[in-house]
Amino acid sequence: MSISETVEVTGHLMDSGILSRILDDIREYGGDYVIDRFDVGHDAADVSRATITVTAEDDESLQRLLMRLQTRGVNQVDPGEASVVEADMDGVFPDGFYSTTNLATRIRLDGRWYDVENPEMDCGLIVEQDGGSVRVYTLPMSDVRTGMKVVCGASGIKVSVPVIEKGSDAFGFMESDVSSEKPQAVLVRQVADGMREAKAAGKKVLWVGGPGVVHTGAAPAMVQLVKAGFVDVLFAGNALATHDIESSLYGTSLGIDLAMGRGVEHGHEHHIRALNTIRKAGSIRAAVDSGVLTSGIMHALVTQDKRFVLVGSVRDDGPLPDVYTDVIEGQRAMRAELKDVGFCLMVATMLHSVATGNLLPASIPLVCVDINPATVTKLADRGSSQAKGIVTDVGLFLEQLALELVPDYRRS
Amino acid sequence: MSISETVEVTGHLMDSGILSRILDDIREYGGDYVIDRFDVGHDAADVSRATITVTAEDDESLQRLLMRLQTRGVNQVDPGEASVVEADMDGVFPDGFYSTTNLATRIRLDGRWYDVENPEMDCGLIVEQDGGSVRVYTLPMSDVRTGMKVVCGASGIKVSVPVIEKGSDAFGFMESDVSSEKPQAVLVRQVADGMREAKAAGKKVLWVGGPGVVHTGAAPAMVQLVKAGFVDVLFAGNALATHDIESSLYGTSLGIDLAMGRGVEHGHEHHIRALNTIRKAGSIRAAVDSGVLTSGIMHALVTQDKRFVLVGSVRDDGPLPDVYTDVIEGQRAMRAELKDVGFCLMVATMLHSVATGNLLPASIPLVCVDINPATVTKLADRGSSQAKGIVTDVGLFLEQLALELVPDYRRS
Amino acid sequence: MSISETVEVTGHLMDSGILSRILDDIREYGGDYVIDRFDVGHDAADVSRATITVTAEDDESLQRLLMRLQTRGVNQVDPGEASVVEADMDGVFPDGFYSTTNLATRIRLDGRWYDVENPEMDCGLIVEQDGGSVRVYTLPMSDVRTGMKVVCGASGIKVSVPVIEKGSDAFGFMESDVSSEKPQAVLVRQVADGMREAKAAGKKVLWVGGPGVVHTGAAPAMVQLVKAGFVDVLFAGNALATHDIESSLYGTSLGIDLAMGRGVEHGHEHHIRALNTIRKAGSIRAAVDSGVLTSGIMHALVTQDKRFVLVGSVRDDGPLPDVYTDVIEGQRAMRAELKDVGFCLMVATMLHSVATGNLLPASIPLVCVDINPATVTKLADRGSSQAKGIVTDVGLFLEQLALELVPDYRRS
Amino acid sequence: MSISETVEVTGHLMDSGILSRILDDIREYGGDYVIDRFDVGHDAADVSRATITVTAEDDESLQRLLMRLQTRGVNQVDPGEASVVEADMDGVFPDGFYSTTNLATRIRLDGRWYDVENPEMDCGLIVEQDGGSVRVYTLPMSDVRTGMKVVCGASGIKVSVPVIEKGSDAFGFMESDVSSEKPQAVLVRQVADGMREAKAAGKKVLWVGGPGVVHTGAAPAMVQLVKAGFVDVLFAGNALATHDIESSLYGTSLGIDLAMGRGVEHGHEHHIRALNTIRKAGSIRAAVDSGVLTSGIMHALVTQDKRFVLVGSVRDDGPLPDVYTDVIEGQRAMRAELKDVGFCLMVATMLHSVATGNLLPASIPLVCVDINPATVTKLADRGSSQAKGIVTDVGLFLEQLALELVPDYRRS
Repeated sequence: MSISETVEVTGHLMDSGILSRILDDIREYGGDYVIDRFDVGHDAADVSRATITVTAEDDESLQRLLMRLQTRGVNQVDPGEASVVEADMDGVFPDGFYSTTNLATRIRLDGRWYDVENPEMDCGLIVEQDGGSVRVYTLPMSDVRTGMKVVCGASGIKVSVPVIEKGSDAFGFMESDVSSEKPQAVLVRQVADGMREAKAAGKKVLWVGGPGVVHTGAAPAMVQLVKAGFVDVLFAGNALATHDIESSLYGTSLGIDLAMGRGVEHGHEHHIRALNTIRKAGSIRAAVDSGVLTSGIMHALVTQDKRFVLVGSVRDDGPLPDVYTDVIEGQRAMRAELKDVGFCLMVATMLHSVATGNLLPASIPLVCVDINPATVTKLADRGSSQAKGIVTDVGLFLEQLALELVPDYRRS
Repeated sequence: MSISETVEVTGHLMDSGILSRILDDIREYGGDYVIDRFDVGHDAADVSRATITVTAEDDESLQRLLMRLQTRGVNQVDPGEASVVEADMDGVFPDGFYSTTNLATRIRLDGRWYDVENPEMDCGLIVEQDGGSVRVYTLPMSDVRTGMKVVCGASGIKVSVPVIEKGSDAFGFMESDVSSEKPQAVLVRQVADGMREAKAAGKKVLWVGGPGVVHTGAAPAMVQLVKAGFVDVLFAGNALATHDIESSLYGTSLGIDLAMGRGVEHGHEHHIRALNTIRKAGSIRAAVDSGVLTSGIMHALVTQDKRFVLVGSVRDDGPLPDVYTDVIEGQRAMRAELKDVGFCLMVATMLHSVATGNLLPASIPLVCVDINPATVTKLADRGSSQAKGIVTDVGLFLEQLALELVPDYRRS
Repeated sequence: MSISETVEVTGHLMDSGILSRILDDIREYGGDYVIDRFDVGHDAADVSRATITVTAEDDESLQRLLMRLQTRGVNQVDPGEASVVEADMDGVFPDGFYSTTNLATRIRLDGRWYDVENPEMDCGLIVEQDGGSVRVYTLPMSDVRTGMKVVCGASGIKVSVPVIEKGSDAFGFMESDVSSEKPQAVLVRQVADGMREAKAAGKKVLWVGGPGVVHTGAAPAMVQLVKAGFVDVLFAGNALATHDIESSLYGTSLGIDLAMGRGVEHGHEHHIRALNTIRKAGSIRAAVDSGVLTSGIMHALVTQDKRFVLVGSVRDDGPLPDVYTDVIEGQRAMRAELKDVGFCLMVATMLHSVATGNLLPASIPLVCVDINPATVTKLADRGSSQAKGIVTDVGLFLEQLALELVPDYRRS
Repeated sequence: MSISETVEVTGHLMDSGILSRILDDIREYGGDYVIDRFDVGHDAADVSRATITVTAEDDESLQRLLMRLQTRGVNQVDPGEASVVEADMDGVFPDGFYSTTNLATRIRLDGRWYDVENPEMDCGLIVEQDGGSVRVYTLPMSDVRTGMKVVCGASGIKVSVPVIEKGSDAFGFMESDVSSEKPQAVLVRQVADGMREAKAAGKKVLWVGGPGVVHTGAAPAMVQLVKAGFVDVLFAGNALATHDIESSLYGTSLGIDLAMGRGVEHGHEHHIRALNTIRKAGSIRAAVDSGVLTSGIMHALVTQDKRFVLVGSVRDDGPLPDVYTDVIEGQRAMRAELKDVGFCLMVATMLHSVATGNLLPASIPLVCVDINPATVTKLADRGSSQAKGIVTDVGLFLEQLALELVPDYRRS
């Protein structure tokens, strides 16, 4: 016995290789397919449309396959109505809950379509009805509470893939793969353009950074970028902030004497003392206000009234008083800063880049810069398909970016 | 004006290059030195002893330099008495607190020497006097409370470097550097010997693992090693446990179909559903007891009554109900499992390896295995000088390790 | 003004993403296209066929685009007759020469189709007519001589892509990407199967190796594989052979004391002396015959009457007397050994792997094993589309491979 | 039975860790030692001197150990007279030949000391006596001819380690290790200083480059550096030159469309056609003279009358007519350009960097820049102890270097 559903997908299906991936998914999930119809654009500019009947062993398998296909932008031809089940435990979704994509999503309830407020992947969809008004929003598993209405199965749900204009796209250059063999100066310029466009559109620029920003000597460049208005929010961990502060207080960063360009193995004594100093002050802002902290990235963010969210990890010393030690609370604090973000730059951190990639909707352009190809690859592998990777030196990249974006930028 | 102190260090000073590093440290901290006396062993087996007068600008600089030198095993010739100051804030050490090494440490109070109970680096030293009895122990910054007595400055403190027998040492092979160009089969055998020796001495074997253990297909080998008694404690994150459980429930691990050897990009739908299933059960043990979870690494640990500590990170989905979401609480839970650990193997995780390296005393042999040289280098750079690195494939390494340690081991 | 040609391509076009790459190529070369017809298979097993009209600015651009598309298996619907021009300089092709792919190729002359004898990419096609008999073969640029007849333009040429059976293929597991996160034990087994199949079909197994084979301690495993008949030909450089011989004569390999598992920085004194010893003997075989060389990989190849081709590089010391110091002569010697090769394993060398990848026809299965992902990626980027990559430890990989292939294999 | 010799070494023995390495060497070669005397400098600025009696099993072992120790700058206290043996075969040194270091070397014959003309490692020392005049020079193994007088054993030979001023050295910053975590902008400035100093001293700047220079878009920066006089000689392979020429002729480099910043998989058709074009012209200079080649790095070298040596490898297509296809002849051509070189920069090539490192005397400052840490590490491991490594992005590095060195440099 088997069960089928007819789905459709529209777009530059062949150009983008998306159709191959859809058929791969069907096989991966043990399903089968018949291509009912395939309207191919005749010209390069035309859009293709495919209608496919997918078959699975049973309804549960089919529903899961349909959810999987939605991550590719595949919708049911006749989606029907969304099905809603009440959660009966805190922190646990009902069986068969709909697992979200990071695409723009709508659901149909009682014949009407509702937009999902905040696309985020790997969440559930919660329906709130209050009189005539209906809200649908994503919620992570840990935040669901007994009695909440959770969408189950794949019925009644449509997703939309962000349309990327072939050729005209500022990020067309990075279409293919992660590579260290690309004209890097061109890439810098295009990232600068992306930031300028976001600011011009009234959007915020989100940075996600690791301690490598400080180690590679890029802190002065980043400070200038903060002052020039190109850093609205910073997501980071205890390490970036502590090394930045350590560098400001003692002129070192975990053993790098930046002024002299001399490296030492490790200098944890400076590190741990910098942490104690800020803990004594009470917070980074308090340390700035009291004149203890007078330079660096964190100082610039505070004095320029920019936002930052620091989330801890198990390897942290200290940590700084501003750090969320509970990672789930940290994720909530990050989510709260995502509104109006129009561009995201991730620099020199795998942990916080993957964490941010998990939270961002697919519609936000995202560039990941790291000297380690694995970081960029990992990000893409986790499903942040909008992620573009640049494998390059973080220090020189930010130096060049400041040269592009900050008028009269000179290293002092 | 300047201030001086005479220090001494003993050991295979020239063989090990330790003297160069000591002199480098003095320069790094802006100090100066005169070598007062240097008794060099005439024969290869002899021990050298150096007496050095170090000079710094002022007392604060000198104290900090002396603390730094203690990480190399350098002690003051006339250490005097330890100085103790009461903490006047929760979570903050007094200025000038002694920042610990991970070496065996003693402090002198009122003319008597006391052993520090639990060496751990980057902590403070707390003195507790109760009637005639005196305890001295390390405490991380976040756990200090107002009124606790904290050792300040470098006086009255002696450290001892673990003696490594040249040549006879099981880990002599790894003396030099991280390298992928070493005879790997020999290394596997020597790690196996290290584990056997620890078990023979009644000690525990601690594993620190990342999800790569599951992705590389090494879970069956690790299950056999658990059953054979070579895994007493596992430190990991949400990822290893979830991918292991996902693999057990659905035969996949973030997109790797292990049975078929086929990879997919990502399969978060399985991932998120596995998390929901265990959250519904209440805990990993509950899922084993109720028959939901019937195989894999976590199943083996539960059924063999072994310990595990899972500490979360900001990129986690779910997480599993067993995961510490507060990283500081997670560190405390890890510390609580360190007693009687006699060998530590770190596999395929940078985050949890560095975290564990921060907690372990220098006396515990520690081997870090990763295909990424950066992970191993990072660990060594952080000051875990006892860390030995093997750059190799995790899957094949654990397969070979099981062949060495598990009688009649065959992959099924 | 512009000029057009109608082309066609057949196969699992959407599954394999080949169609997207074809359309990308057309854009890369500044051309345009109209898809005239696209017959999509309804079922997963069906083959698709596309007919496309491609347009370019002028005939030269069109011819070059058509040559480019042939690397994807795209042929002209009406290929017409091949056009032949005489070379008028030694070592130089006529303008507009057809640049070959590594696919099975036929050309049409006077209405008849002829098979190209030895597909190899980046060569020219030479036509030899002797009475009624016609030969067509590939020839590298440096070997062309005045008066030879060289095919020009893309007319009259058809290529065939090797058919890879979906699912049933032994190498299906590696379909997707280079990855270090794959179940390695499964991969080893499948490489073993590939070698067994080649031998069962009466084909030769070609190895391409770098010095890492010796450094990782895998020489004993490789020696056993030679003796068991799974190494028919070895392509390598001066380094693998010298380190192997050095290890045999002195127990070291560029500073690795294999017996003790101890590493040193470099030990060029052994290295240079080993080279002198073999040069004095006259050749590797002479050194074996005279009892100077009594163990190791090269010894095994000589005593088992297996073939090897050593080609030098600019960094070589010595070199060994058997090494081709002229790289073009070295390439000729490699080509001469390709007949009847049915499987190729490349281990721990980028230079010789890329060199061999350049020479091999697309029909020969090829697996590249290296701990460095860049090596594997580079090979694939160069157009060896049949190349499958395994990022793993070479030492443990060959150890496992010997366990699979050599009855009663035990490390001595 | 055993045999001994007394040796001495002078310098900052403890600072530099050199003494530990000497003692390691003795153990590696199975020898033993007694430290007879060790005069340690009291102050940081003082030089130490050690006198050591080394013992080996027999004379051959001792001689080889003494040669090994000379690579560390260790000389015999009483070196005696050099022993000379006639070669009795072409291309083969006599048994027991002295294997050279890359240090400044003198030998004693008939009571007089003679400077070795051209220090190069892994060579033999040839003595030529013509009447009263005596020459001593290094010669690679392949160039020795029957009847030449070759120095054997370690007697009568002294080497001198180049003195590196602590702290004042322009390259002090790179003293420690290969690292990607260093302030890159500082490093660029210091490399620029090194080049300026060499030019000011009337010395030549040698570049060694790989195709990554072109792929990363750095060719325009390098062209400006050629024109500004900071590139006197280029050592490279067929690939750099061909990709540069391909980029000039077709605007691509192995699939990188530099103008648009778009990457493609591979574009060998352009590549092979560029080779044919230059082969037709006869040489790169002929192609420049005839107006075929009008831009790029090779064009700049030709029009600025700078030198280049291109040496081929087994993976080459073509190759260009200027390429030495015989690698031993290529090495000779490289040697011929080393006179008066005062600074060497190696960029994005492992093969040619190691080759050049083999030829250079230890006295020439050498910086190796690559995004791949393995390249830099490999170079250092091979014995080029004067090599300093910078792990960074080649494209951005050269862009910054041009900003430092070329007045009014702007990217067009």
